[in-house]
Amino acid sequence: MTRIAIVGGTGPEGRGLALRLAMAGHEVVIGSRDAGRAAEAASGLLGSPHPGPLPEGEGKEGLAISGAENVRAVSDADVVLLAVPFEGLRPTAESLREALAGRLVVSIVAPVEFADGQMRALSVPEGSAGELTRDLLPESRVAAAFQNMSARDLLRAEHPLEGDVAVTADDESARRETMALAEAMPSLRAVDAGPLSNSRYVEELTALLVNLNRIHKAHSTIRFLGL
Amino acid sequence: MTRIAIVGGTGPEGRGLALRLAMAGHEVVIGSRDAGRAAEAASGLLGSPHPGPLPEGEGKEGLAISGAENVRAVSDADVVLLAVPFEGLRPTAESLREALAGRLVVSIVAPVEFADGQMRALSVPEGSAGELTRDLLPESRVAAAFQNMSARDLLRAEHPLEGDVAVTADDESARRETMALAEAMPSLRAVDAGPLSNSRYVEELTALLVNLNRIHKAHSTIRFLGL
Repeated sequence: MTRIAIVGGTGPEGRGLALRLAMAGHEVVIGSRDAGRAAEAASGLLGSPHPGPLPEGEGKEGLAISGAENVRAVSDADVVLLAVPFEGLRPTAESLREALAGRLVVSIVAPVEFADGQMRALSVPEGSAGELTRDLLPESRVAAAFQNMSARDLLRAEHPLEGDVAVTADDESARRETMALAEAMPSLRAVDAGPLSNSRYVEELTALLVNLNRIHKAHSTIRFLGL
Repeated sequence: MTRIAIVGGTGPEGRGLALRLAMAGHEVVIGSRDAGRAAEAASGLLGSPHPGPLPEGEGKEGLAISGAENVRAVSDADVVLLAVPFEGLRPTAESLREALAGRLVVSIVAPVEFADGQMRALSVPEGSAGELTRDLLPESRVAAAFQNMSARDLLRAEHPLEGDVAVTADDESARRETMALAEAMPSLRAVDAGPLSNSRYVEELTALLVNLNRIHKAHSTIRFLGL
């Protein structure tokens, strides 16, 4: 059991990961600038009806999901996921820098925007959201992962996940610990994708997957064959 | 049977695609600035020993692969693949612009370079090699595909291919015809990946796959799940 805080966790991606990580047996705190909204998101996840049985026969009532203001959420966490929109990454990381010192911090941020009816990857001067996070948090161990997961799939608790989670980090232990988080979710495979300089390709893949979803009216994810 | 010219086809990627397209029953001409080198590449593909049986029991002696100088190679082609390195794309497209007018042209170019021990995607002002090709060849129908395929896998005739070929084109017919070329290779699936603006993500994926191969000592390719 790991204590996981999800900063910016009230959005669909953050709530989806909160649900899946709690289903994997972890203690999850949803963080928000507004403690009330965080608590609301947590109770929404615990109380929402679901159309089928949960994997491993566990009910949502057994899940450990709570909500707290961001600084409070991260203060007891073993791992902190940053689930903010890209434009919020810099101010959020800067404001939490001290609270995040010494912790494993995982960026799930994909810098993308809609333009002309297509999802488009934004150019990031630091290379990627993962590298920006690393640069902003020199006293934390930083990894990047989970960027390609569909919030809709994550939130459908009865729906088995599938695909690969490419995990990047410059710090070997950060990469291993993040891979273990991904592997704890049934049916997902964690893939060691090397240093944070590779995060850019994983983040940008999100734009392609969203565009493929629109073309094929599907919910696509990725698998690396041959590994 | 389609007549396919592969410009810059003497490199490993071009030769690999020449082999696989010929194995799929097409008539392939390898193009080069040097007719002698083109002929040599063609006879090398036809004459090389191979360790196992060819798929569908066909021998290489039955394959239609020849070589010619680039302009001559494309003059009779139904489809032209551009298999040049990225730095050669602009001069090659400009010099062949007239010869390529009215034809289906498929960029297989991935703009990448090695730097600091990692494969790195180059920034392309036009967005991608596919879009640059489109801009340089306004009288051709342009698609982009096959960027992620490993030359080594392509050249091992006894080795079944696997994975998805993401095909982008602004022109619907160009996309459909290119998808048909990919689908003619056994075990590959062509994926409609929309307009050329999506080619960037497919091209950049090449850098990630090469880096994954180095980390895992593997030969990776990609599959889109859920489509």
